Amino acid sequence: MRAVQYRTPGKGPELVTLPDPEPGPGQVLLKVTAAGICHSDLTLMDAEPGTLSFGLPVTLGHEATGVVEALGPGTGPGADGGWPAVGDAVAVYGAWGCGACRACAEGRENYCPYAPAQGIHPPGLGAPGALAEYLLVDHTRHLVALGGLDPVRAAPLTDAGLTPYHAIRASRHKLPPGSTAVVIGVGGLGHLAVQILRALTPARIVALDLTGERLALARNAGAHHTLVADDGARAALDELTGGQGPDAVYDLVASPETTALAAAVTAADGYIALLGIGRGSVPVAFGATRPGVTVTAPYWGTRQDLLDVFALAREGRVTTLTETFTLEQAPLAYERLRDGTVLGRAVVVL
Amino acid sequence: MRAVQYRTPGKGPELVTLPDPEPGPGQVLLKVTAAGICHSDLTLMDAEPGTLSFGLPVTLGHEATGVVEALGPGTGPGADGGWPAVGDAVAVYGAWGCGACRACAEGRENYCPYAPAQGIHPPGLGAPGALAEYLLVDHTRHLVALGGLDPVRAAPLTDAGLTPYHAIRASRHKLPPGSTAVVIGVGGLGHLAVQILRALTPARIVALDLTGERLALARNAGAHHTLVADDGARAALDELTGGQGPDAVYDLVASPETTALAAAVTAADGYIALLGIGRGSVPVAFGATRPGVTVTAPYWGTRQDLLDVFALAREGRVTTLTETFTLEQAPLAYERLRDGTVLGRAVVVL
Amino acid sequence: MRAVQYRTPGKGPELVTLPDPEPGPGQVLLKVTAAGICHSDLTLMDAEPGTLSFGLPVTLGHEATGVVEALGPGTGPGADGGWPAVGDAVAVYGAWGCGACRACAEGRENYCPYAPAQGIHPPGLGAPGALAEYLLVDHTRHLVALGGLDPVRAAPLTDAGLTPYHAIRASRHKLPPGSTAVVIGVGGLGHLAVQILRALTPARIVALDLTGERLALARNAGAHHTLVADDGARAALDELTGGQGPDAVYDLVASPETTALAAAVTAADGYIALLGIGRGSVPVAFGATRPGVTVTAPYWGTRQDLLDVFALAREGRVTTLTETFTLEQAPLAYERLRDGTVLGRAVVVL
Amino acid sequence: MRAVQYRTPGKGPELVTLPDPEPGPGQVLLKVTAAGICHSDLTLMDAEPGTLSFGLPVTLGHEATGVVEALGPGTGPGADGGWPAVGDAVAVYGAWGCGACRACAEGRENYCPYAPAQGIHPPGLGAPGALAEYLLVDHTRHLVALGGLDPVRAAPLTDAGLTPYHAIRASRHKLPPGSTAVVIGVGGLGHLAVQILRALTPARIVALDLTGERLALARNAGAHHTLVADDGARAALDELTGGQGPDAVYDLVASPETTALAAAVTAADGYIALLGIGRGSVPVAFGATRPGVTVTAPYWGTRQDLLDVFALAREGRVTTLTETFTLEQAPLAYERLRDGTVLGRAVVVL
Repeated sequence: MRAVQYRTPGKGPELVTLPDPEPGPGQVLLKVTAAGICHSDLTLMDAEPGTLSFGLPVTLGHEATGVVEALGPGTGPGADGGWPAVGDAVAVYGAWGCGACRACAEGRENYCPYAPAQGIHPPGLGAPGALAEYLLVDHTRHLVALGGLDPVRAAPLTDAGLTPYHAIRASRHKLPPGSTAVVIGVGGLGHLAVQILRALTPARIVALDLTGERLALARNAGAHHTLVADDGARAALDELTGGQGPDAVYDLVASPETTALAAAVTAADGYIALLGIGRGSVPVAFGATRPGVTVTAPYWGTRQDLLDVFALAREGRVTTLTETFTLEQAPLAYERLRDGTVLGRAVVVL
Repeated sequence: MRAVQYRTPGKGPELVTLPDPEPGPGQVLLKVTAAGICHSDLTLMDAEPGTLSFGLPVTLGHEATGVVEALGPGTGPGADGGWPAVGDAVAVYGAWGCGACRACAEGRENYCPYAPAQGIHPPGLGAPGALAEYLLVDHTRHLVALGGLDPVRAAPLTDAGLTPYHAIRASRHKLPPGSTAVVIGVGGLGHLAVQILRALTPARIVALDLTGERLALARNAGAHHTLVADDGARAALDELTGGQGPDAVYDLVASPETTALAAAVTAADGYIALLGIGRGSVPVAFGATRPGVTVTAPYWGTRQDLLDVFALAREGRVTTLTETFTLEQAPLAYERLRDGTVLGRAVVVL
Repeated sequence: MRAVQYRTPGKGPELVTLPDPEPGPGQVLLKVTAAGICHSDLTLMDAEPGTLSFGLPVTLGHEATGVVEALGPGTGPGADGGWPAVGDAVAVYGAWGCGACRACAEGRENYCPYAPAQGIHPPGLGAPGALAEYLLVDHTRHLVALGGLDPVRAAPLTDAGLTPYHAIRASRHKLPPGSTAVVIGVGGLGHLAVQILRALTPARIVALDLTGERLALARNAGAHHTLVADDGARAALDELTGGQGPDAVYDLVASPETTALAAAVTAADGYIALLGIGRGSVPVAFGATRPGVTVTAPYWGTRQDLLDVFALAREGRVTTLTETFTLEQAPLAYERLRDGTVLGRAVVVL
Repeated sequence: MRAVQYRTPGKGPELVTLPDPEPGPGQVLLKVTAAGICHSDLTLMDAEPGTLSFGLPVTLGHEATGVVEALGPGTGPGADGGWPAVGDAVAVYGAWGCGACRACAEGRENYCPYAPAQGIHPPGLGAPGALAEYLLVDHTRHLVALGGLDPVRAAPLTDAGLTPYHAIRASRHKLPPGSTAVVIGVGGLGHLAVQILRALTPARIVALDLTGERLALARNAGAHHTLVADDGARAALDELTGGQGPDAVYDLVASPETTALAAAVTAADGYIALLGIGRGSVPVAFGATRPGVTVTAPYWGTRQDLLDVFALAREGRVTTLTETFTLEQAPLAYERLRDGTVLGRAVVVL
């Protein structure tokens, strides 16, 4: 089959031909429909040789939708309550855990402490990924029925939607009526974050980015206010909030500049989630922020979070803006992503 | 194999011989080590013919520990991260759900809304149960490693421990320092409820039962106060709590008398969990209890709850008092349970 | 001053003349602007003589807005951070507690266990109420700044808005994406409940009532579906929810019929709040509802809840539909309320 | 009256004579019984001139117990439900807020966003403090009845007990059965933190400090394990937790060394609270800690938290180890604290 792999440090993604995979016991083989293109793939390919927790080559792509092509022994009708069956349209929950520990028992596979040591990696981030004609999924519990959702718009929901949803759900008690939420960066994750905040909270939403096009996207997504992310942003946020600062900041960029802004403006007892990988950080200490600010860098989301995101999409509360590419164009899509010229999420359609 | 079944309305449990089961795809076959004897089996056998949600005969027993005897296709090493393997000592999580819905995704299989319609029943409560030499488990996610726990004391933890744990975990925010928790009924569930309350909350614990032997069991389990469950109990609880009433009541009897007591004494904004099946009920309405009392009849527990209960047992925070029987003595054990002469939990050891 | 009192069992509300009150130490005197007319006043006047927790006569009215007329010693500028001052427009938090216990310390004065024994009653429900030209408020903590809100629309928010807000906030974890909430009764509380559900949760909202006019009000308030509350309602709710039932039911009527409906339809692990006083009740017991349903009859709301409701109103998320009356027309307003011909909330404007 | 003030940068605490204060409207005058000596006073006196948010001189002491000496107008019997009265033994809740905002309405005065701008400071940290014969308290809501507690042991509970309690209550969902909590620093706060963890959670508790005396204090307080806080601590914590790390770390030192340890060891989805002022910090960013670790520097505690701490003390669950000094010895007590030779909490007894 055709696939896009990261094979050699410094060389970027390459189109290759691989043998078609076959499902072993408990596994499911998908014919891939769509696969999202994510910033974290760039971070992966930019990493110093030897610092990755898995070996090369790796087939990229950790946001996937597909159709069940074949079921391995011990899966499917008769073993899993009749689901999934060959031909079912599904999406893939990618944060694979061990499946047996306490975190996994409650669906928090994204925080499974055993997965790395057991050699369990997400597809596209260690295990063979979705930028390929076929994708092996290790367990039926990692599949979610599309239930009528458009597979192209649904693929990004499995990470670009799931990651902000996870952070917003965890912090919605910080966003009562009258509160203010800030979204920094209106890209693939950001335009979904704004919609999720609208659906889950009564907070006033302020979105920050650099271009008018992205700020317009934020307003279309439901942001109440938009601000250019420049030196005036701090003063503007102070003014909007009567000097107290926003109650929650979701930083989808996490550059030194954006994290400094988040640390400076967030209200007492507020919340900062760093969801970008932009080399910034927020130092926590007495006096480093307003009192009692909680800072975290959440990772992906839980299985029920993904079901929730799909429910929002099914009701039209969350819609992904996508720009589509062929598998052959995947390298181009990564270039465009690096240049910052993708509006919404880039998706490879097979 | 030998097994104990409920076959005929009015006849009680019977010892029978059945073919040895074999694991199908995704299933695990256990050699049963121990199986708890539960009041809900009596309720089942007392039910009007035709009111059960499953057909007869049914092999009884929904509290099980065992040793993995055989693995069906698609399970075990290679498919499930190396676990479980033949020979592993395990317990069974019995509240089987569909495995794919939102409730199941977060481990709340006990509230799966699809299980009944899909013909999924817990072992011993529809599916073949643990009062038998062998037990088929439908999925590896329903197994928990014993991790050194005594299998005889561990078997009751899967229901008699899990059920109160689930209710106590859900309500521990009602039990801050200075609060009072009441446990009504110090039987199989009750003596574990007292220990769980000690481990999870700073509440003062008051246990109620009818006999001195059971009240002594409650004190050994950690109750701060014990009261005879007679007409004076209400006044005694009022006095102990300065007239405000206990903040949470766990009624493991749920007779008309105990539910009336719970409704009368519970404090404003308090919590009542009905965990017995004694034909009583608490009517909720404005003025029927103190303001804002929350009343619920929780069902069993979640998968992570069971892991938690086992962790408590492993650390010596929770210990089951058991009285053991052979498989042939299971009918006797049920008689003893009905007579109220079992102290702690009756367990059949195979 | 003129006031409306309930003086004699069987006689209904009467217009009387009383001496003007004066503020003692710590008290604030308000010139009343508006006072809401509530069903619970009818319940009070229908109560058997001798069953009330306070004596007659009582000036009615527990939903109040007003303007600060005078400050007692130990209040106001210098003692309370400069607030309130004479002339400030305020609303009254009516669920007065002792102010010193744990419940009061966290703003849950509505569940203060000491208030009744200390003779502390809400205004209009024991203490002199707001259907009068002047109202004494016992403590500055019971005042909330209107902050630009229309005092006529704001008065009902202090109970008809606060009560459903309190119940919805407590249960919003039961209403994730894809869930269904049911509001039974689209009167003074119900039309606000629908708006609050829209603001706080992503749930699909189904409203039930008897007349087309009220169902139209529910749709205007944001209900996704409306149903006539007749014998077909249960089947319609089952169909809308795929047979699983709604996740939360807010019953603002609580008649025998509506509580029976709530008990029958609510989903496993769901939630029922009884906010009406219609003589119905939900009995909780194993098997009486689907598994794990939580049932409660919450009382009014907390101080922060009221601040939240006002924040929603200020942002236009919650708007009260009012029908206004003069103080002299208050008896007529009660009649109209009893006849069920008030749409939205009846408010006396002074 | 005699008092201990910080008057001049570089000069340390000084014993002075001041006029006796008198209570204004809404205020309460206490005759001080005991006042705790806190590290934050040293931080205050070490601060660069001009960096404090209030002017000098300031009477030190923010942990206070006393007896009501006089009531200002608008307080006490008749205005506050009969409480407090002259002669009542009370403690002071020190994190004074505005009293009117949402945070204050729910007792979170420690996070009031308006207090600083309104010139509201805690006693001893801007307002005149408790190292004096008399203390003015601005509002009766800032008083808590001692209810039989020893005033000397109770004084430190208002900060050294309240601060860890607040952090532990906020994070106890991170500490289920089988989890591990780490307390770094077994001084005034630390020996109380260990006891609070024992009372509130089933976690295994590991305490770290430098001296055998302090580690013995930790074991007496209930720590399950103690470790010398040296270079081997990280490996020891890894081994104790099977390589996954502790689920929560309460760092009461917050030096560069201890914060680096906390950041390195905490488990995925874990929690770090920095409660010391030791110039260390934890930087939060993707990859800087294990995934999803939450880091915060909480400030003091809420009003209900203080009631909870007192309830624990009343039940013997939390006991303060104190070393007592006279008011004249207060400067010595600060020296001893700086030298690290106080075991438990230093308390000035008047």
